Amino acid sequence: MKAEIIAVGTELLLGQVVNTNATFLSEELADLGIEVYYHTVVGDNPVRLEALLTQAQERSDLIVLCGGLGPTDDDLTKDTVAAHIHHSLIQDEEALAQLHDYFNFSKNKMTENNLRQTLMIEGGRAIQNPAGLAVGSLVTEADTTYLLLPGPPNELKPMFKKNARPLLEELFPQQEQLLSRVLRFYGIGESQLVTELKGLIDNQSNPTIAPYAKPNEVTLRLTAKVTDRKEGERLLDQTEAEVMSLVGEYFYGYGDENSLVEVTVERLKQAGKTVSAAESLTAGLFQSTLGDVPGVSEVFKGGFVTYSEQTKETFLGIEPTLIEKNGVVSEACAIAMAEQARILSEADFAVSFTGVAGPDELEGQPAGTVWIGLAEKGKPTIAELQHFTRDRRYIRRSAVMKGLDMVRRAIDK
Amino acid sequence: MKAEIIAVGTELLLGQVVNTNATFLSEELADLGIEVYYHTVVGDNPVRLEALLTQAQERSDLIVLCGGLGPTDDDLTKDTVAAHIHHSLIQDEEALAQLHDYFNFSKNKMTENNLRQTLMIEGGRAIQNPAGLAVGSLVTEADTTYLLLPGPPNELKPMFKKNARPLLEELFPQQEQLLSRVLRFYGIGESQLVTELKGLIDNQSNPTIAPYAKPNEVTLRLTAKVTDRKEGERLLDQTEAEVMSLVGEYFYGYGDENSLVEVTVERLKQAGKTVSAAESLTAGLFQSTLGDVPGVSEVFKGGFVTYSEQTKETFLGIEPTLIEKNGVVSEACAIAMAEQARILSEADFAVSFTGVAGPDELEGQPAGTVWIGLAEKGKPTIAELQHFTRDRRYIRRSAVMKGLDMVRRAIDK
Repeated sequence: MKAEIIAVGTELLLGQVVNTNATFLSEELADLGIEVYYHTVVGDNPVRLEALLTQAQERSDLIVLCGGLGPTDDDLTKDTVAAHIHHSLIQDEEALAQLHDYFNFSKNKMTENNLRQTLMIEGGRAIQNPAGLAVGSLVTEADTTYLLLPGPPNELKPMFKKNARPLLEELFPQQEQLLSRVLRFYGIGESQLVTELKGLIDNQSNPTIAPYAKPNEVTLRLTAKVTDRKEGERLLDQTEAEVMSLVGEYFYGYGDENSLVEVTVERLKQAGKTVSAAESLTAGLFQSTLGDVPGVSEVFKGGFVTYSEQTKETFLGIEPTLIEKNGVVSEACAIAMAEQARILSEADFAVSFTGVAGPDELEGQPAGTVWIGLAEKGKPTIAELQHFTRDRRYIRRSAVMKGLDMVRRAIDK
Repeated sequence: MKAEIIAVGTELLLGQVVNTNATFLSEELADLGIEVYYHTVVGDNPVRLEALLTQAQERSDLIVLCGGLGPTDDDLTKDTVAAHIHHSLIQDEEALAQLHDYFNFSKNKMTENNLRQTLMIEGGRAIQNPAGLAVGSLVTEADTTYLLLPGPPNELKPMFKKNARPLLEELFPQQEQLLSRVLRFYGIGESQLVTELKGLIDNQSNPTIAPYAKPNEVTLRLTAKVTDRKEGERLLDQTEAEVMSLVGEYFYGYGDENSLVEVTVERLKQAGKTVSAAESLTAGLFQSTLGDVPGVSEVFKGGFVTYSEQTKETFLGIEPTLIEKNGVVSEACAIAMAEQARILSEADFAVSFTGVAGPDELEGQPAGTVWIGLAEKGKPTIAELQHFTRDRRYIRRSAVMKGLDMVRRAIDK
C-alpha cells in the first residue's frame, strides 16, 4: 500500500506558505498503515500537474492531492485529475445546497465561479467540507485511488478526519498497524547514541529504531509493525529494555510532546519540592522556561536575574571580595549565587548560571564557558563547569537544559 | 533559471517534521530571481533519491537538497549525489578542523562516524556550517548545479544565508534586481494594516507591498524590480513615505532580522539609560529576551522574578496589605512592582508584569488579563491593562512585546 501526497499551489513554491498539509496527512496515513513515499509540491500549472499524475499513478496506489479546489481560474486540480482519468465533472447536490445555505445566511454575494467549488469527479464519492465551500472527491481508476482535498489547512483537516478517513479505512482495511513509542535523551549527542546502539539498530527490523537530533537532546522513535496491539506493546517493551541497558543513564522521558522542563516540573511536584534560580548569562531564561509549564506555581515561587557584578552583590548579598578573588565565571561565584538564591527564596533547590554567553570573551574565558550551580537544602552545594558551543542563544539554551537536568537528577537520586 | 528543492528524510514522510526548509529556501531563491518549480520529499532511500536526481537533472538548472548530511548510516544524500554525478567524496580540511575544535572544547566524545560529516563532493565548493558539524557542498556537473545542505533548520538557515547565498549570487547573476525593504510595525493587526493601506496596495505594482503577520507584529515588505539600484532606492523611499503617512505611528524599525527587543536595546544605549524588571506571569521572559541581544549588559544589570505573592513581598518589599486590598492582578500591584524594581536595581526604567497566564483564571480574571507597569526615574509610574488572547505561551510573549514597546515609546517621547 503505497501513497504519495501532491500539494498544488504556487504560493508554496514562493515560500509564502508552509506545507503543513503534507505533514498532517502523512501522520494520518501512517496511522492508517498506509506508507507515504513522496511529497511533491507543484505550482498552479496543469501541464506540470498532469506530468506528475502520470508518474505518480505508476508508483502509487493512493494519490492525495491538496489545493486547487477553489473558485478562481488558477484552481485547476479537479479539472486536471478528471481529464487525466477521462472522467467528467458533475454537480454534487449536497455541496450545492450547502453553498446556497451559506450565501443566504452570510448575505455575501454569490458569484458565478463559486459554483465551480461544488463540482465533483463523476464515478467517485463526494467528500463534504464541514469548514468551507469546496467539495472534495475520492475516485478510483485503473487501480489508483485519487483523493482531492482543498488547500486551506483549516478546511482540509476536519474534512479529512470526518469524511475522508472513514472512506479510506473502508477502502484499505489495515492488515498491519504501526505502533510507536518515543524515548527522550539528554546529555548524549546523536552520533554517540547511534554508536552505542549500533548493534541493536543494525540487527533490528521490527520495531525499527530511528534517532532524531533536536537542539540539546536526542529522541529515539521505536516503531513496531504488527497485526495485534498487545504483541506490538510487547515488542516495544523488549526493544526499550535493550535500549535502556545501553544508554538508560541519559533517558529522561517519553513522548513526542514531552520536554525536559515538563519532566523536571513533574518530578518537583511529585517530590513536593520547590526550585529557585539566580541567573547571570541566562538572564531569566531558566525561570521563564519553567514559566512555560501550566501549574508551575506549585514548585516555583520566584528568583533573581543578576546580570552585573553589582546586582550579584546587592540582590544576593554576594561578597565583593569573593568576586574580586575568583571572578564571576567561577565555581565559587556559581556556588554562592545558588546558595543565596535558595536561602532568599526559601526554596528546596536553587540553580545558578554564570558564564560567558558571547560573542566576546569574559575574564579571559571564551564564549560557552559556563558554571552551573545547584544548591539543595541540607546538602552541600555543587557546581559543574560546561563548555557549550554555537551562538549566544544556543549557549544560553544549552545552559538552561543542563540546569534542568541537574535538578531532575538530584530529585531522582 | 529553474530550480527545485529535494528534502531527504523519512521523518518528513511520517509527518514527524514539517518541511520548513523548503519554505525558507523558496523565499530566498525567489529573492535571488531563481524560480522554484518543484518541492519533493523522499525518504532515506538511495534508490528513490537516485531516480529523483535523474529526473530533476533533466528539468532543473539548480537542485537544492536538504537533509541526510549527518553522521549516521541513513544519512546518504552526499553519497547518492556523488555517485549520481560520478564524483568522489573528499575530506574538507576546514570542516575537519572545526570538528576537532568542537570536540576539544566541548569535551564530548568524538565517534568515528562524525568524520563522515566533514566530507564534501570532489570538484565542488565546501559550504561551511556555522551552527553544526556537517559541511555542505556546491557542485556543478553537466549544466546542473547541486547544492547540499543539512536538515536541521537551525543549521541550514545560517549556512545558506552566510555561505551558500553569496556563491549562488556569483553563479547566477541577476539581470533585473529585486531591491527590498522591510518595515516593522507593532500595535496594529495585519487586517487593520491592510485596510489602512488598501488604496496604496491595490494601485501599486512597483514596488510591490506585501504584508506579513508575525506573532505580535506585522512586517511590510516593499520590493522594487529595477535595473538601476539608485532608481530602486528612490522608488522605495517614495512608497515608504506614503506608507508612513498612513500607519507611521505603529512603525518601530527596519529589516528582516531586526526585532522590537533589538530596537529597544539600541534606543536605551543611545539614551544612556538602563532598564530592570519585576516579572510575575512572564517569569523572566522579558529579561531573558533582553539577554538575547549581544552587548545588553550596558543597559541591563538585573531584575526579579516574583511569581508568588510571597516573593513579591520578600524580594521587592511590597506591602502585604497592598496585595490583600488590590490583588496581584491590579494596577496598584503593577505600579508597586515596577517602582520597587527600579529602586532596588538603581535603573532608569523598570517594567513590571502581573496578570493571568492561564489556562486557569486568577482572582476572578480570565487568562490574558495583564497589567504592565513602567517606572521611570523622575516621572510618575504608570501601568497599562492589556487583554491578550490565545494560549499561555502566546500571552506571556505578547506581554513582553508590550513591555518593550512601552520602554521604547518612553525613550522616544
